[in-house]
Amino acid sequence: MKIHLVHAHPEPKSFTASMRDVIIQTLEDEGHTVTLSDLYEMNFNPVVSPADFGERRDPDHLTYALEQRHNYQQETIAPDIASEIEKVLAADVLVFTFPLHWFGTPAILKGWFERVCISGPFYGGKRIYGEGGLKGKRAFTAFALGGRPHMFGEGSIHGPLETGMMKHFFQGTLGYMGLDVIEPFIAWHVPYISEDARKQMLVDLSEYVRTLDRQPLIEIPDITNFNDRFEPK
Amino acid sequence: MKIHLVHAHPEPKSFTASMRDVIIQTLEDEGHTVTLSDLYEMNFNPVVSPADFGERRDPDHLTYALEQRHNYQQETIAPDIASEIEKVLAADVLVFTFPLHWFGTPAILKGWFERVCISGPFYGGKRIYGEGGLKGKRAFTAFALGGRPHMFGEGSIHGPLETGMMKHFFQGTLGYMGLDVIEPFIAWHVPYISEDARKQMLVDLSEYVRTLDRQPLIEIPDITNFNDRFEPK
Repeated sequence: MKIHLVHAHPEPKSFTASMRDVIIQTLEDEGHTVTLSDLYEMNFNPVVSPADFGERRDPDHLTYALEQRHNYQQETIAPDIASEIEKVLAADVLVFTFPLHWFGTPAILKGWFERVCISGPFYGGKRIYGEGGLKGKRAFTAFALGGRPHMFGEGSIHGPLETGMMKHFFQGTLGYMGLDVIEPFIAWHVPYISEDARKQMLVDLSEYVRTLDRQPLIEIPDITNFNDRFEPK
Repeated sequence: MKIHLVHAHPEPKSFTASMRDVIIQTLEDEGHTVTLSDLYEMNFNPVVSPADFGERRDPDHLTYALEQRHNYQQETIAPDIASEIEKVLAADVLVFTFPLHWFGTPAILKGWFERVCISGPFYGGKRIYGEGGLKGKRAFTAFALGGRPHMFGEGSIHGPLETGMMKHFFQGTLGYMGLDVIEPFIAWHVPYISEDARKQMLVDLSEYVRTLDRQPLIEIPDITNFNDRFEPK
């Protein structure tokens, strides 16, 4: 399998970086090919702007999604975006490693989705969820947060995590593009636990990666239950 | 009242920019004072990094939230962050205008929350939700999206918007810091409607702003129902 990993953490010695390394090592040990976008190392620009387009469908008014489609067709999208698109489309599995910020991805990764996952090849019109452009590919995620498991789930202070606070990411971003979304590996309470506990987490992560095929998927809306206007049938 | 508005759109002639202008005009007509952070115009940097800190509690390992607290106390946080913090803390009401990207704020605004809304004055330890640092202030939001109302809500293709796909923002970000979160003004299907329909939306927005005090609030978890470990009492 070809795997593309996108990593976002400003500290090269972070626990999130260790998770990245364990994932790559485990996958390579199993004979897979891994490519990496280390967004901080690449100094990746996450801010959508007119400079993303070599040509303009409408030079007077920027409608970002429409220019994405136009410039992708004309092959005039900015080179840093084009090379990321190529890596994603070549992969069978996408992986994301990051620290949770405000119940979402850090801005440098949020902007990667905005600039790279363009209207056209990734989604568009009726092509979302089960009909999304990345249909047939899978995604998994390993992220670190300060919180603890009892703060999430039904009846808890924050409510469900994957299907609540992070629904925008698992369903609204990964699932939206047609990916099969594997339940994430969550590194709980990382800044506050012992070095031994962190080491054990990395062992658990390696086991998670080795058993990916048996990990459950996050439920994504079934597009066949909705009509062409996305109304329930 | 003092109002601080944070605006994020790369197109100066966008409908979102018109919403910003209508909000400011309506508030000023009512005698309020409005300050503005136009993130694209400011060329705001949304990427958290070691450069955000003039001094380091731990020069060898960046733990972002801990350095935020330390550098805020020492008054050594980066000047572009410090000036934003000052504007927020001086305001009675915060306003956000943006186009919805992947069911969240654009990266340039996502990173504003990450860099400006720091651990310490904004939240920390047990000081979240009703005990958050911005307790007593209010927030409202006007955002534009391509989707239509029937795509959201119970039984719809995407599920609830404010309490589902955007829970991370309304509850997990604004509510988390202690703000009273007013139900947003949503500009539906903007790229696909007529000029007349867009003009009517701006009239409706002005009315929404004039009647802010009567707009409903989004429900935020009641912190008094949880103990010191955030377990249900």
